[in-house]
Amino acid sequence: MLDVLGKGTITTPRGFLAGAAYAGIKVAGEGKLDLGLLSSEAPCAAAGVFTTNRLQAAPVLLDRERLDRGRARAIVVNSGCANAATGAQGYRDAQEMTSWAAKKLGLAPEEVLAASTGVIGQPLPMDKIKTALKDIALSHDGGHALARAIMTTDTFPKEAALAVDGFTIGGIAKGSGMIHPNMATLLCFLATDAAVELPFLRRALRRAVDVSFNMITIDGDTSPNDSVLLLANGLAGNRPIAGGREGRAFQEALDTVCFSLARAIARDGEGATRRIEVRVEGAASTAQARVAARTIAGSSLVKTAAYGADPNWGRILAAAGRSGAFLDSDRAELYLGEVCVFRKGVGNAFDREVARAALEGKEVYIRLNLNLGRSCATAWGCDLTPEYVAINSEYMT
Amino acid sequence: MLDVLGKGTITTPRGFLAGAAYAGIKVAGEGKLDLGLLSSEAPCAAAGVFTTNRLQAAPVLLDRERLDRGRARAIVVNSGCANAATGAQGYRDAQEMTSWAAKKLGLAPEEVLAASTGVIGQPLPMDKIKTALKDIALSHDGGHALARAIMTTDTFPKEAALAVDGFTIGGIAKGSGMIHPNMATLLCFLATDAAVELPFLRRALRRAVDVSFNMITIDGDTSPNDSVLLLANGLAGNRPIAGGREGRAFQEALDTVCFSLARAIARDGEGATRRIEVRVEGAASTAQARVAARTIAGSSLVKTAAYGADPNWGRILAAAGRSGAFLDSDRAELYLGEVCVFRKGVGNAFDREVARAALEGKEVYIRLNLNLGRSCATAWGCDLTPEYVAINSEYMT
Repeated sequence: MLDVLGKGTITTPRGFLAGAAYAGIKVAGEGKLDLGLLSSEAPCAAAGVFTTNRLQAAPVLLDRERLDRGRARAIVVNSGCANAATGAQGYRDAQEMTSWAAKKLGLAPEEVLAASTGVIGQPLPMDKIKTALKDIALSHDGGHALARAIMTTDTFPKEAALAVDGFTIGGIAKGSGMIHPNMATLLCFLATDAAVELPFLRRALRRAVDVSFNMITIDGDTSPNDSVLLLANGLAGNRPIAGGREGRAFQEALDTVCFSLARAIARDGEGATRRIEVRVEGAASTAQARVAARTIAGSSLVKTAAYGADPNWGRILAAAGRSGAFLDSDRAELYLGEVCVFRKGVGNAFDREVARAALEGKEVYIRLNLNLGRSCATAWGCDLTPEYVAINSEYMT
Repeated sequence: MLDVLGKGTITTPRGFLAGAAYAGIKVAGEGKLDLGLLSSEAPCAAAGVFTTNRLQAAPVLLDRERLDRGRARAIVVNSGCANAATGAQGYRDAQEMTSWAAKKLGLAPEEVLAASTGVIGQPLPMDKIKTALKDIALSHDGGHALARAIMTTDTFPKEAALAVDGFTIGGIAKGSGMIHPNMATLLCFLATDAAVELPFLRRALRRAVDVSFNMITIDGDTSPNDSVLLLANGLAGNRPIAGGREGRAFQEALDTVCFSLARAIARDGEGATRRIEVRVEGAASTAQARVAARTIAGSSLVKTAAYGADPNWGRILAAAGRSGAFLDSDRAELYLGEVCVFRKGVGNAFDREVARAALEGKEVYIRLNLNLGRSCATAWGCDLTPEYVAINSEYMT
């Protein structure tokens, strides 16, 4: 039995503390936060999933190394500057940032992970970070402040937590455009008080990311900074989870928290007026279901049609057709909301106004049954609007 | 020596005739053409390259079959209706359309190819096509009318021809969004009076398409109708080309005509205000150069930055980084026009106003040297504008 916690965040699980401050890295400062810290009262098993972009930000390079041994106890994060495409100096800056955080927390630098999000190609303002880091006050309800400190073009913070069978998982995320005007990107931090064996923790995080964050698409771009980090401090006192029934319960809870955060990101897509949920069923394999769902959700033509509430279903079929998934048009069936618009190789007679109404809400549901097998997948996206273009064509300063 | 012919078109090569009429398939009719015919006075070796979309329009299915034997003598084409996702009836309609054209021209139906572009999922209005086909008058300068008859959201017809060493190649194309609001798409017809051996003709067309049409990206979508068809009637009287020096001359001429048509399509991207040319040099392989150039040209974030004349070069590097091409940021160099913005792993100090000026013209040049090898490739795209969203969010009627 899963209980979604109404006001849950990353500090909801036992033994996690967080805090944030304004260092002056982001431009307009009033009331904004741009530097944050997460810390655990006990050592943690730790796992990370990172961007597949060949251009990797300095904190990503650092975290990959530090997570080799699967242990960490804190995360220091800034917004407003990505510390990407910053060369050797960028790497030293990321190291130094974690050293300062470690000193403040009484930890070894290797126990601290780093994350950055913001403008690419500019050095971190290290003096500002050093000063502001001292001001951060950590607390057991500091997760909300941390969630705000990682926002860039996000219009609201993304937080979730779930209590299940004696342990709790909480998380925060940022991301609105996958990459925002200034190369901000997806960051997600997850914390749990469950005791979890490292190999299982790594597999569980990979799986949860695959079915959630890897199924959202805002504009098809990925960034050098995309990072999902998970810390498990074991303070729930359970027998360490390594699989089996407890493993399934943990996976389900982790998936649910990640789903919740991913859907919030899709809803907050830059300039978006509607969220699009694409369900592909009856695919020959899960990989094919996933690629078809993602391609439909990411198609510029599907996204603009959704903006115009235009039941132009040919674009959806064409996107599925180019996705790489097998598609037999004589078998496929396509639905907009509850309205069947295509089946048995031809368009199905439908009431345009009813189909249009299915596209006019805040949530648009597209369902494609390929009728070829038993695999299915769901992807989330948002419509493409003139506002997206306006946000992303602004000068980078 | 290549001579681009100022007013050349598909009927510039010897022995090709074309004509067009208004059948009433497109909506607003005044002065518009929507049905066309191309015919050769002599039998032709014929080759085609088609969409990779799994959803294939009826005329694509028909042409693939008919081109198995590598012979054809005419093309009948309509705009306003794609005859895609139309099932078995759609296939019979495509067959019937070629039968009527064959009868008019005194040919066997198997000698006639078909092409359609327009709204997906609706049946061809066969009565209108039958009637209008009779009205088409073929002539040796009918190529211009044919070029207009295949336009959908195109704002100008695309035509080119080239005379070289005793033979001539001419062509016409349509396409503005890769797929326009009503699922119109890329069509290109090419004709030459050169005598060319079929195996070489097929290879040459594939290569020309790879370096031209496959390197333009408007919105990343492909359609069920994309087709490039090439007829070679041999009326130039040359010894049939099968490779060697003549083969290279033919390939160069064919590439040039295709380049010219592809660039015209990129310039006519839906709602575009600038054309973007992306040159990737120093790649480890041609495949890597191609995928990097295409990914940069197709990135929504690069396209919106170009619209805003924003020298946000991090987006370009990030697009290259996610393309799959190998990228070592310590070696890569990036230029906007003549301005070097990134090298040796870090941003290069540059004058923002000069960089901005490089982005403000009708043509934007992006050059990325990966400094890893000797391979290079060029891709063309256009900026992403509020007008693109407006065009593509309109109701499909």
